[in-house]
Amino acid sequence: MDEKLVREKERVDDLQNGYYVIQDPDKFCFGMDAVLLSGFAKVKKSETALDMGTGTGIIPILLKAKTQGKHFTGLEIQKECAEMASRSVKYNHLEEDVEIVQGDIKEAADIFGAASFDVVTSNPPYMIGQHGLRNPDMPKAIARHEVLCNLEDVVSQASRVLKDRGRFYMVHRPFRLAEIMNVLTKYHLEPKRMQLVYPYIDREPNMVLIEALKGGNSRITVEPPLIVYKEPGVYTENILKIYDMI
Amino acid sequence: MDEKLVREKERVDDLQNGYYVIQDPDKFCFGMDAVLLSGFAKVKKSETALDMGTGTGIIPILLKAKTQGKHFTGLEIQKECAEMASRSVKYNHLEEDVEIVQGDIKEAADIFGAASFDVVTSNPPYMIGQHGLRNPDMPKAIARHEVLCNLEDVVSQASRVLKDRGRFYMVHRPFRLAEIMNVLTKYHLEPKRMQLVYPYIDREPNMVLIEALKGGNSRITVEPPLIVYKEPGVYTENILKIYDMI
Repeated sequence: MDEKLVREKERVDDLQNGYYVIQDPDKFCFGMDAVLLSGFAKVKKSETALDMGTGTGIIPILLKAKTQGKHFTGLEIQKECAEMASRSVKYNHLEEDVEIVQGDIKEAADIFGAASFDVVTSNPPYMIGQHGLRNPDMPKAIARHEVLCNLEDVVSQASRVLKDRGRFYMVHRPFRLAEIMNVLTKYHLEPKRMQLVYPYIDREPNMVLIEALKGGNSRITVEPPLIVYKEPGVYTENILKIYDMI
Repeated sequence: MDEKLVREKERVDDLQNGYYVIQDPDKFCFGMDAVLLSGFAKVKKSETALDMGTGTGIIPILLKAKTQGKHFTGLEIQKECAEMASRSVKYNHLEEDVEIVQGDIKEAADIFGAASFDVVTSNPPYMIGQHGLRNPDMPKAIARHEVLCNLEDVVSQASRVLKDRGRFYMVHRPFRLAEIMNVLTKYHLEPKRMQLVYPYIDREPNMVLIEALKGGNSRITVEPPLIVYKEPGVYTENILKIYDMI
């Protein structure tokens, strides 16, 4: 443990799998969506993966912990975020396996080159830029609202940096499902697997997990529902399994 | 009851709501999908509705029973089916409220005129024409496989016969969800509400119910999951409620 890696006001969260992540509670902290996306995504042996808009770096770190992938890259536009995520990588001694790159999702193909990854993951901003409160200077707003990039930017760049037959995994909000399907198809990322996450069995879903295949044909498997809570404060077995797995 | 309305080999099914439907067990009989679509669809007072590919006429009859709609039309290409559905209408003394028209979905706009309905419903063939067994002479194949019309035919004609801000309700198979979203959007029928029907809570969904709004903006509400069985042979409360309502 190198305490110099952790700055004042920051905290170190134990991921319960041997890894840790540094977070600043004043900025955006990772949520269950990042954890569920890491559970949903598959990175096979010797594959490379890029996480677009990595924030704290939680997704590359969880995917490194869970999979046999060869190398993991996290792309983050916000300088302080990227720098903190790099310190998390060092804190876990993962410098050989995980690299954090500071840069713009909209320039991903220029930064990394076309067809350079087997897998791309993203937990992008959910809210449409024009709606709700936002302040371009606030890290939370940038993480939540489409201030610096929109869905089409993420999907179009994911398609470019993916190899043919590469896989794209995204977590998003169900209210944008029709748009998500249309944009994925537009960029030849064919939706192949989808799971809706329902907070309770009798409630509307608040997350959707999607796997798309570059150059795939049109046929999607919708997974059994993922229900989060059995009762307030009590996770279902399925959620506990995902937290155990990663 | 006019027994002459029922032919040899046919049977009369009691819909438990005061209405009946004539069916021929050798041909295609209506299933739970038609019942769930009738439960999902809304027809408001003084609105007119068209059911595309009405088969036995079950959907117009159920919608007449459940709603305050002004008039219901069922379009059916198969002559014997359309004739049998017309006898069901007579059997229920619904000649003032429900009309069965024999004709091709692909010509719906020519038959009825553009912008002529407030609501369109459809329980179209689910299976892609090129797949699986099919025989164009068989009523079951025509009902199940895209032999005489495909998804794009149904959606494009629905869009044409709907008034602006008219609503389209469809039941389909989840494996075609991405295609459904794309085709609806292409014809300006914006998906606004969706419900997945799961046979059991831990199983993949086998039906999807969709409401689309002609000229709507891009935002969809995904409903709580509709689970069919609590245990084998025992319906959930939600399913019993739908059967009660219609």
